[in-house]
Amino acid sequence: MSRRINLAVIPGDGIGQEVVTQGLKVLRAALPQDVKLETQEYDFGAKRYHATGETLTDADVEQLKAHDAILLGAIGDPSVPSGVLERGFLLKLRFLFDHHVNLRPSKLLPGVATPLAGQPEIDFVVVREGTEGPYTGNGGTIRKGTPHEVATEVSVNTAFGVERVVRDAFARAQARPRKKLTLVHKNNVLAFAGHLWTNVFNEVAKEFPEVTTDYIHVDAATIYLVTDPGRFDVIVTDNLFGDIITDLAAAVSGGIGVAASGNINPSGEFPSMFEPVHGSAPDIAGQGKADPTATVLSVALLLRHLGYEAEAARIEEAVAADLGERGESTRTTEEIGDALAVRV
Amino acid sequence: MSRRINLAVIPGDGIGQEVVTQGLKVLRAALPQDVKLETQEYDFGAKRYHATGETLTDADVEQLKAHDAILLGAIGDPSVPSGVLERGFLLKLRFLFDHHVNLRPSKLLPGVATPLAGQPEIDFVVVREGTEGPYTGNGGTIRKGTPHEVATEVSVNTAFGVERVVRDAFARAQARPRKKLTLVHKNNVLAFAGHLWTNVFNEVAKEFPEVTTDYIHVDAATIYLVTDPGRFDVIVTDNLFGDIITDLAAAVSGGIGVAASGNINPSGEFPSMFEPVHGSAPDIAGQGKADPTATVLSVALLLRHLGYEAEAARIEEAVAADLGERGESTRTTEEIGDALAVRV
Ligand SMILES: CC(C)[C@H](C(=O)O)[C@@H](O)C(=O)O
Ligand SMILES: CC(C)[C@H](C(=O)O)[C@@H](O)C(=O)O
Repeated sequence: MSRRINLAVIPGDGIGQEVVTQGLKVLRAALPQDVKLETQEYDFGAKRYHATGETLTDADVEQLKAHDAILLGAIGDPSVPSGVLERGFLLKLRFLFDHHVNLRPSKLLPGVATPLAGQPEIDFVVVREGTEGPYTGNGGTIRKGTPHEVATEVSVNTAFGVERVVRDAFARAQARPRKKLTLVHKNNVLAFAGHLWTNVFNEVAKEFPEVTTDYIHVDAATIYLVTDPGRFDVIVTDNLFGDIITDLAAAVSGGIGVAASGNINPSGEFPSMFEPVHGSAPDIAGQGKADPTATVLSVALLLRHLGYEAEAARIEEAVAADLGERGESTRTTEEIGDALAVRV
Repeated sequence: MSRRINLAVIPGDGIGQEVVTQGLKVLRAALPQDVKLETQEYDFGAKRYHATGETLTDADVEQLKAHDAILLGAIGDPSVPSGVLERGFLLKLRFLFDHHVNLRPSKLLPGVATPLAGQPEIDFVVVREGTEGPYTGNGGTIRKGTPHEVATEVSVNTAFGVERVVRDAFARAQARPRKKLTLVHKNNVLAFAGHLWTNVFNEVAKEFPEVTTDYIHVDAATIYLVTDPGRFDVIVTDNLFGDIITDLAAAVSGGIGVAASGNINPSGEFPSMFEPVHGSAPDIAGQGKADPTATVLSVALLLRHLGYEAEAARIEEAVAADLGERGESTRTTEEIGDALAVRV
């Protein structure tokens, strides 16, 4: 474990700058004195796009590669056509840096509001595949704009890509007390991809005899997420299904204000990227209203990824304690960041 | 409106027979004396598949074509490999009979339990496209079973297919008091299909100036379905997104025990098919535990489709009244059917 962290910081758009500032504050508070934190800020996002037409250049990518990890606030603005920044920056980076493990924990902490009745116990983590599926940009359009237009989207799934993420998920399940892994797919309809996922899942399962497994269709999974979320421990699923169910998972376990995520390259060949699940929320940007908790929890995932397990745990405990006492309080972004930094 | 209904009845597997029996009972009770109901039962499903290897033959299809509508219980059994009956029967019929409007209303009735806190108001209908998207069976596998396997799934979207379902949804929104239509897609990632859907949606919107429109990504839609379901009036979406969000919609608005659906061919060229959203539930089959309400509400959709608006409304009122008085009662499938038939 290195005593030096060379971090790329991408505040991005909207509330991104505000939440990242607090995330860095808590990161500094959590790190041992002798660990040197170097940060370099990058201006990706809507402003740069409007000024230069660029989202992420080859030179940018080379610079980012030199870092140990990336902390991202949020990317996206209504002034930019839908998809331009998402595909031109966020997804581009996930693909270029081979972030195939998209990690999204969901834990309903004591005292935190949930839209579900009866305050159920929720503590699971979704391992979403991050570099394949319908996210590859494969597909096309013919006769665009005519009554005979045909548009296709191709979900691409490889044994290589599925196996590595499934194996990662099994290892995570193995390391948790309940040792349970659920595959979420739609193999009764998407038979080609479904067969590959199911088959690889069953094969890798043989290497993890202690892990209990089950399979649920994605549509049924959304039902369980609201009627019986306690049944989940670790979930592994494809890129698109993972996108959908992790937003729902965030909603039921405290809201996107507290949902963290990591775009992880487990080999370490390229830096991993950590970001709150929420977007840039331009409607509340600059008002100090944004909740930095999701970013702070993403910082914990970042620290854990870099080997700072104790520091990650301290941040998570600080967040749990703070959330438990929050009640109806309406603190500013900075006040929440300060409180968390003090606790850490 | 014909004074004669020639109905195909497909009980199917598991609890299918039980719920369909009650659905027919309520249908008979609702119909005016002078309307002649002819029913013909078909044995599609697991039993026939095991006996003959058939799911749906050309001759079957010809017979079914002769009916005015189809009432389906549920298809699917663990003894049959996942997908065989779904694709070989259910989806095959939706495609052959061009059931492009898959109609799924969600209404949280007074007195009905929901997993959501605070008993929110829920009254919307999802118009799910039924004949395109990732459900077309396009795609394939190379190097199957090897470490180099590649499996693809192709989502196929046509201007023709999108426009007709979007127009149907606008017409439904126009006919409702709130006159609001939400497009649910993922156009920031699935740019080819997303562009087609968004473009067609915006074009057709010009013909319906009274309808308020908005757009939500499918991941965000799952959040709103649990935090603010009251914001939805009519939703139009693609086949797969519709599959996912209607299970969630059912879960929050009373559960799949009360979720009805219609696979509709609005032109009437082929018979439309009505079915509960739930599956065959083999674990409780034959025990009189299944709730026939979803089937009864599907019968109401069937009657409305055939022009019997008053009768459809009477069934829906009977269900609302019955649900309001249910509480913790544990009546059998038959008792619920009897109670509904009496009320109608
Ligand atoms: C912004 C968008 C491209 C992204 C995704 O679809 O992956 C987001 O929804 C997420 O979940 O990180
Ligand atoms: C059984 C399955 C093929 C079907 C679907 O995916 O459409 C079901 O989930 C539904 O929603 O009717």
